[in-house]
Amino acid sequence: MPFIHDDFLLETGTARRLYRAHAAAQPIIDYHNHLPPREIAENRRFANLWEIWLEGDHYKWRAMRANGVPERYCTGDAPPYEKFLAWARTVPRCLRNPLYHWTHLELVRYFGIHDLLDEATAKSIWDRANERLRSDDLRPHGILKTFDVRALCTTDDPADDLRWHQQIRASGLATRVYPTFRPDRALDVHAPDIFNPWVDRLGAAADVHVARLGDLLDALRRRHDAFHEAGGRLSDHGLPYCYADPCTEADASAAFDHARAGRAVDAAAARRYASFMMLFFGRLDADKGWTKQLHLGALRGVNTRAVQAVGRDTGFDSIGDWPQAAALGAYLDRLEQQGGVPRKILYNDNPADNSPLATMIGNFQDGSIPGKMQFGSAWWFLDQKDGIEQQIDALSNAGVLAQFVGMLTDSRSFMSYPRHEYFRRVLCNLLGREIDRGELPADDGLVGGLIEDVCFGNARRYFQWPD
Amino acid sequence: MPFIHDDFLLETGTARRLYRAHAAAQPIIDYHNHLPPREIAENRRFANLWEIWLEGDHYKWRAMRANGVPERYCTGDAPPYEKFLAWARTVPRCLRNPLYHWTHLELVRYFGIHDLLDEATAKSIWDRANERLRSDDLRPHGILKTFDVRALCTTDDPADDLRWHQQIRASGLATRVYPTFRPDRALDVHAPDIFNPWVDRLGAAADVHVARLGDLLDALRRRHDAFHEAGGRLSDHGLPYCYADPCTEADASAAFDHARAGRAVDAAAARRYASFMMLFFGRLDADKGWTKQLHLGALRGVNTRAVQAVGRDTGFDSIGDWPQAAALGAYLDRLEQQGGVPRKILYNDNPADNSPLATMIGNFQDGSIPGKMQFGSAWWFLDQKDGIEQQIDALSNAGVLAQFVGMLTDSRSFMSYPRHEYFRRVLCNLLGREIDRGELPADDGLVGGLIEDVCFGNARRYFQWPD
Amino acid sequence: MPFIHDDFLLETGTARRLYRAHAAAQPIIDYHNHLPPREIAENRRFANLWEIWLEGDHYKWRAMRANGVPERYCTGDAPPYEKFLAWARTVPRCLRNPLYHWTHLELVRYFGIHDLLDEATAKSIWDRANERLRSDDLRPHGILKTFDVRALCTTDDPADDLRWHQQIRASGLATRVYPTFRPDRALDVHAPDIFNPWVDRLGAAADVHVARLGDLLDALRRRHDAFHEAGGRLSDHGLPYCYADPCTEADASAAFDHARAGRAVDAAAARRYASFMMLFFGRLDADKGWTKQLHLGALRGVNTRAVQAVGRDTGFDSIGDWPQAAALGAYLDRLEQQGGVPRKILYNDNPADNSPLATMIGNFQDGSIPGKMQFGSAWWFLDQKDGIEQQIDALSNAGVLAQFVGMLTDSRSFMSYPRHEYFRRVLCNLLGREIDRGELPADDGLVGGLIEDVCFGNARRYFQWPD
Repeated sequence: MPFIHDDFLLETGTARRLYRAHAAAQPIIDYHNHLPPREIAENRRFANLWEIWLEGDHYKWRAMRANGVPERYCTGDAPPYEKFLAWARTVPRCLRNPLYHWTHLELVRYFGIHDLLDEATAKSIWDRANERLRSDDLRPHGILKTFDVRALCTTDDPADDLRWHQQIRASGLATRVYPTFRPDRALDVHAPDIFNPWVDRLGAAADVHVARLGDLLDALRRRHDAFHEAGGRLSDHGLPYCYADPCTEADASAAFDHARAGRAVDAAAARRYASFMMLFFGRLDADKGWTKQLHLGALRGVNTRAVQAVGRDTGFDSIGDWPQAAALGAYLDRLEQQGGVPRKILYNDNPADNSPLATMIGNFQDGSIPGKMQFGSAWWFLDQKDGIEQQIDALSNAGVLAQFVGMLTDSRSFMSYPRHEYFRRVLCNLLGREIDRGELPADDGLVGGLIEDVCFGNARRYFQWPD
Repeated sequence: MPFIHDDFLLETGTARRLYRAHAAAQPIIDYHNHLPPREIAENRRFANLWEIWLEGDHYKWRAMRANGVPERYCTGDAPPYEKFLAWARTVPRCLRNPLYHWTHLELVRYFGIHDLLDEATAKSIWDRANERLRSDDLRPHGILKTFDVRALCTTDDPADDLRWHQQIRASGLATRVYPTFRPDRALDVHAPDIFNPWVDRLGAAADVHVARLGDLLDALRRRHDAFHEAGGRLSDHGLPYCYADPCTEADASAAFDHARAGRAVDAAAARRYASFMMLFFGRLDADKGWTKQLHLGALRGVNTRAVQAVGRDTGFDSIGDWPQAAALGAYLDRLEQQGGVPRKILYNDNPADNSPLATMIGNFQDGSIPGKMQFGSAWWFLDQKDGIEQQIDALSNAGVLAQFVGMLTDSRSFMSYPRHEYFRRVLCNLLGREIDRGELPADDGLVGGLIEDVCFGNARRYFQWPD
Repeated sequence: MPFIHDDFLLETGTARRLYRAHAAAQPIIDYHNHLPPREIAENRRFANLWEIWLEGDHYKWRAMRANGVPERYCTGDAPPYEKFLAWARTVPRCLRNPLYHWTHLELVRYFGIHDLLDEATAKSIWDRANERLRSDDLRPHGILKTFDVRALCTTDDPADDLRWHQQIRASGLATRVYPTFRPDRALDVHAPDIFNPWVDRLGAAADVHVARLGDLLDALRRRHDAFHEAGGRLSDHGLPYCYADPCTEADASAAFDHARAGRAVDAAAARRYASFMMLFFGRLDADKGWTKQLHLGALRGVNTRAVQAVGRDTGFDSIGDWPQAAALGAYLDRLEQQGGVPRKILYNDNPADNSPLATMIGNFQDGSIPGKMQFGSAWWFLDQKDGIEQQIDALSNAGVLAQFVGMLTDSRSFMSYPRHEYFRRVLCNLLGREIDRGELPADDGLVGGLIEDVCFGNARRYFQWPD
């Protein structure tokens, strides 16, 4: 029996039955990822397995570095096959890491390859996969069709002009591709060398001359409108923790002016400014019926030397452990008092935050929208079997699993669509086991309905896309 | 087979044997709950299922709001049956939430109803339950008898006059009903509009004119005496985290005077004042051999708008994630240096605090009383199968499970007594499984003795009630 | 079947097969413990079971105190058999505590005694064990041979003169015994009554007159050299959390001078001074290719009264819950910028820190050494089945389990060597179960190779001992 087989992760007959009847055939709504819009628009053809699989994958680089693979074979200038070979040698050392499952699930689902990847199988897998990559089925449009992706949301800077999204829309691609408004740079007044060029780019995209804070808000509002025009209905923020310090508009203006004058705003003032901005962003979303995502708790760029050498988002981030609950509660409370919290999805990087966040959403469920406040899918380091089970457990115990909008890939790679399958298998395995134990009613219709909703139905109903 | 059957949650034969022989028939000591003394005294007759089951249950309201049920059907003015129907429609969406198990366990144990509650069964269940509610068996005295509740402790404000407790005592009810001294309001110098009326009420109850801090302490001491007279042997505090800042009596007096003059004491000074008071409360309990409970880590009243609209304790609280250990250790250390820590039960709201608290108790076990320091039962959001197992595991790994005083309902409802059964099933399932795996000796007497102690024997020996 | 039998903790046939073929026969490298070098050097003969088993074991004392055993029978002056009897009475109450497994595993492996210890069996076990203790097999050299301990590292103060280590080396003992450089006292400028006598002892050991900070650094460097000469390749620090505040040499000097003048340095200045010293210690290790261990998160000496009465390290410590990640990341980042992080092993006391630490190591894996950065074995309160599984899971999910250097005893007792067996059984049980579930390939060679590496091979390759 191959390692990845029909019953992979499905331990009981009930789990298998549930998966086949209620999960396997559900379409995908991938409402948060980091796919490059340009590659979708241009329907990129991948020259080889390295391009489609390793080119931008910091999960793999981290595993390789931990195994003693030099940087040259991770992000460096080694030839593609040598990099792939270094990865192949690393794979057998990754037992129990999610990469081991993902790797083999991806090889099967994209290339029909059932071999376990290691040094011995590397060459043959490389050749077979590269051969398959000539097919249009393995270009973005083909992949999205194969996996029945009905909609996906990329993650975009407000300063982006969205032309690739326009081009995608014009192309007639069946998958709806929407931009997500992620204005992280707008908070960077502590780093004027990053902030100021970004403000200028934003101003150009919005056609606004940004001299004062009011201009910045105006430019952001215009871009938010433009994202809305392009079908965008989600925003996103990556924050170490929520910013919820009191801040007057005058204080925020002062911080803005300070940064625009090229001087770094100190940490406390930058947090106040960020708090002001987060309320502004919250109102933008609430006014248009959008869904705001908060990704909380990552400790980013920990290794300065490496980030300077290799760049951001290359695998030098880890799980932070700041307290989250009080500030997050204060932020949501302020929004609620100012006219309403928008739909929200809260994601945590630290598993210790599962329960605080899973209970926090209950404070702002107001009965207006089923599942209005969401505790998001297991994120980043938690996106593995244990993490998925723990997120489902925390949500189940504290809230209403049946309203959950479910899985997303959060990936930079077109090779990540089997993550939805992986999640569904874990979900069905868990529910099937509990039916067998008598912890859930032995009623496939009841439990299967929940599965269908979590896999697809809830996301379809929850987000307010234009079509 | 009905959903709730004899072997519910008992996965192995060993678990079933242990449960039947050592757990099922044990009486109940419910040493912490929020039952209304008046309803016990008056032996309230419940007109319908809404009154006995939904009237005050914020767990259900939270689930309903998350499912998109408007507030009118939760805490609002909809007719009782419509509220019940809204709940019935919500139940099938609550799969994996503890409400799903509790609901059906309660329907069986109180009403003999084995149907699963949903929209289709709602009317029939409503009618049958209401019919059954005419029986005296489903009034408080009947319920306490049915569940063999030997003693229970309500949660009371020192300003309460305890007359309902006197009336209960006079009634000859077999269940001992004791008040618990919970002086949370005594710390509210940051909120003089709450603090001052409370101080006045307290003074009236204690027959003390409270002008200075010394008067407050005197009044509290008198009420503590009165609670002792009424059989009370437990105190309780609900705190976000322990207060353990150094504070002189002069500083505490100044904070008191400030608040009494109608001015809010600032956060730092209020924490110092609270630290002073907590030492005072600790000595009160130590002097009389009482048990002090600390409920640590809830983040309360997060949604100001909702609390203002609906009131406190209506489901707008969640799990906080403040560091707990250092301040808690400092508080206990100070008490120990001032003449001794009283018996203590530490409860945490955040599962991340399980291990810190389960190990903290070991620092103050002094060999004088078996299990003197207790790591309390899974509380609030943790009161479900996973949470119960995790509390038992944390306590087992760091301390002595066999000395655990066990479960309590912590409930406002007379319908919650099956929580003890639920806990016992989880406990026996866990121990049975470990016997089967060879992790515990296959000695029913040894393991069964532990079960009997945790279910009843320890609590009976531990608390020092007068009779 | 006896409680401790061949398949103890091995639930499936696969687990048993893996354990027997790949784990059971592996030698031991015990790279971190607190064994007294003198007792190894002198090959102490233990007069009775109390001496070898209870004399210094704060785990047992904590359990006894929790069971209501007076201090006289823990650390006090009761006769050895009475203390043992008090322990024997406690053991049956310790079901589910790791002591229950450890106790019976140790009785079997050292004395061949399969009885369960309780009051009834106490006398017979005492007599039989004492009889066996007459054999040289149960003196330190015999024990190390029996358990095939190839190398072990004690934990030593830089002020120690290492003469016992020299004597051990001279004795021809087959087990390599190395000192570990643990300079915790060097940070104690907040406690001059501890700091100053220690500085004087250090100066004497290093033959340096310590007048200024530079002299202290010089003395420490000389002792580091001496430890290196003695084969030491590990350092160790026990810290509540990492110190990573900016601190100039002038500030550090001022703090040093302040303390040397007999005045306590305030908390903030002491943290800055400690930050300065930790960078110094990091460079010492990096320069010589050592491995630095950080034991993070213990809250020590919580009960002042008890510590004053009984002494440090007698069971009045618990799990702290300070945030760890940001400061730890900053410390490692600073080291990396100053020329490189040495090999590192990060241990956490709080299970909530598992994921932050397991991901932190990935930030500083630089591809130079396989598994350069290690997430250490479950420590102290976490050294039990649940804790071991959780550490393995956290490491597996976030990093590369196959590079893990594995288990250690961390013990003060020669009776703790079965902890390695215990760990190996847990590891094999977990891996066997996952093969059976199809979560790992059914390839004993692949999985067995990982087991051999984690049990022995990685530690043998990772540490850079001289021979």
